[in-house]
Amino acid sequence: MEPTIDNPQDQLSRHLASKLAEVNALIQARMASENAPRITQVTEHLVGSGGKRLRPMLTLAAAELCGYRGSHDVRLATTVEFIHTATLLHDDVVDESRQRRGRPTANLLWDNKSSVLVGDYLFARSFQLMVETNSLQVLDILATASAQIAEGEVLQLTAAKDLSTTEATYLKVVRGKTAALFAAATAVGGVISAAPQAQTDALSTYGDALGITFQIIDDLLDFQGDPAQTGKNIGDDFRERKLTLPMIKAIAASDQQQRSFWNRTIRQGQQQEGDLEHAIELMTKHHAFEAARKDAREYSEKARSALRVLPEHPLRQMLSDLVGYVLTRLI
Amino acid sequence: MEPTIDNPQDQLSRHLASKLAEVNALIQARMASENAPRITQVTEHLVGSGGKRLRPMLTLAAAELCGYRGSHDVRLATTVEFIHTATLLHDDVVDESRQRRGRPTANLLWDNKSSVLVGDYLFARSFQLMVETNSLQVLDILATASAQIAEGEVLQLTAAKDLSTTEATYLKVVRGKTAALFAAATAVGGVISAAPQAQTDALSTYGDALGITFQIIDDLLDFQGDPAQTGKNIGDDFRERKLTLPMIKAIAASDQQQRSFWNRTIRQGQQQEGDLEHAIELMTKHHAFEAARKDAREYSEKARSALRVLPEHPLRQMLSDLVGYVLTRLI
Repeated sequence: MEPTIDNPQDQLSRHLASKLAEVNALIQARMASENAPRITQVTEHLVGSGGKRLRPMLTLAAAELCGYRGSHDVRLATTVEFIHTATLLHDDVVDESRQRRGRPTANLLWDNKSSVLVGDYLFARSFQLMVETNSLQVLDILATASAQIAEGEVLQLTAAKDLSTTEATYLKVVRGKTAALFAAATAVGGVISAAPQAQTDALSTYGDALGITFQIIDDLLDFQGDPAQTGKNIGDDFRERKLTLPMIKAIAASDQQQRSFWNRTIRQGQQQEGDLEHAIELMTKHHAFEAARKDAREYSEKARSALRVLPEHPLRQMLSDLVGYVLTRLI
Repeated sequence: MEPTIDNPQDQLSRHLASKLAEVNALIQARMASENAPRITQVTEHLVGSGGKRLRPMLTLAAAELCGYRGSHDVRLATTVEFIHTATLLHDDVVDESRQRRGRPTANLLWDNKSSVLVGDYLFARSFQLMVETNSLQVLDILATASAQIAEGEVLQLTAAKDLSTTEATYLKVVRGKTAALFAAATAVGGVISAAPQAQTDALSTYGDALGITFQIIDDLLDFQGDPAQTGKNIGDDFRERKLTLPMIKAIAASDQQQRSFWNRTIRQGQQQEGDLEHAIELMTKHHAFEAARKDAREYSEKARSALRVLPEHPLRQMLSDLVGYVLTRLI
């Protein structure tokens, strides 16, 4: 059996338990729509599906770490979860996904239309929540993060199938689609605490580097994870012709024959049995998995060192341990 | 030839010409994305497609009418146009539309994915623009309107094909999907002018009633418009089984045989040649078009009388004339 206690995420979760309960209550209250019950059903399906509330925990932890006393942290943690949920709903439409967290996706259970519109609703609700914090700086940070998320997703869409995609483009995509919300989630915790600029900046750097670590590992797990644990199939990115870091590295190192393999499978999309296995072989041969993991480790170190500027606090250690957990996670 | 000058919309457009030019410049500047050129292409396709900028004009007119001097009106007018454009992009995905304003839709020219994500981008950009006005009240009004838009769209989705849809439900849908943004567009013009509450309320009432008038007429034009002028086919709502006011009225008045016609064509979606013509016949027979037009006229009167509270100004007359123009428009 997988250990369910004592990992850093669970530690955070226990430390923040009472605030997290408030977040869950606020999620329930604000996702409801009297006029359109479909909204509540779709949202419930996703927010009740056992997500770990990682992003809201980052906001709560950052705020407590900076000495915040008040209730805006709960609003912002809910905001962040709503933005995340909205992007998941839209992602599943864009990726034509059928499964998330081991359950059928909303676009499959209802339809794409509902996923698009309920995502829009949650996004708007998240802005209403932000407005209640009366902080224009918070609004600025989260509106900018939202634009970066969409920008990263569009960039990912246009870079898909394009063998000339560079590691720099990959990083832009990841910064947008993943790290921007992590960075905003931690930064706003500092902002509502009126923390010194250096601390808010450090929180932002921590979130950014943690988010990049998280996404590189996620992309590695797509090839190396245990489907029973991740709830995802091995090789989805390859099949969807989405160029992630290990593929980009292997393509850059490929000889002419290998290049024509990538050309056929990714650019032209003509995939046949055994191709995924061959792709994994090539990535292994070129040490692409190791190299990607090394990159993730570098970002994880950046995340950890950013924490030094922050006050001494049990949460500071938990956030530091969380980085290592994300780096070595199995699911 | 259709007259192209001297209608109230053109009058407004001429009166607001220099501000509108600033809005167009800001749209161009803020829709651009250095990282993801696809965003600029998709947005350009839609914002450059000859939309009349009705909603931004409402904001500019409301602000000038209330004596506003400054540049936030241009930001808010751009915000409103971005929210509108984002909803059009998502609507076209939801409705699987192929044509808008007589041109192929973005989801057809690119794909649904791009439309979803570029819509998200514009929505986020609109919030960034709002934040620049430093007005939490403005943010509150526009975030709430955004939530109402999505709610109205979801309600429309779940009410489609449902013969028990009432006029009250129709009105909720219309208030959400159309009138909420009209009302917010006019109200924020008052708010940034620090107009007395009674004036801001009147602007909101005007926008709401104008929006409802606009949508009822739009739904009538779906059956009665000239495709050469509207750029839309006759009977799209019938084919998409979207229950609009004239259909709801005709269904409510139908005898058993007529009911089974609606049941087959709308609930079951089994449509055959001649059905659209028969539906139009039934609506004509039950005076459903006349009755819907009468409802529109009542809302138009409500819009016009709301203007009485506002200061004397040439724009007040233009906004009043605009109501009549919307009520009798041919396209």
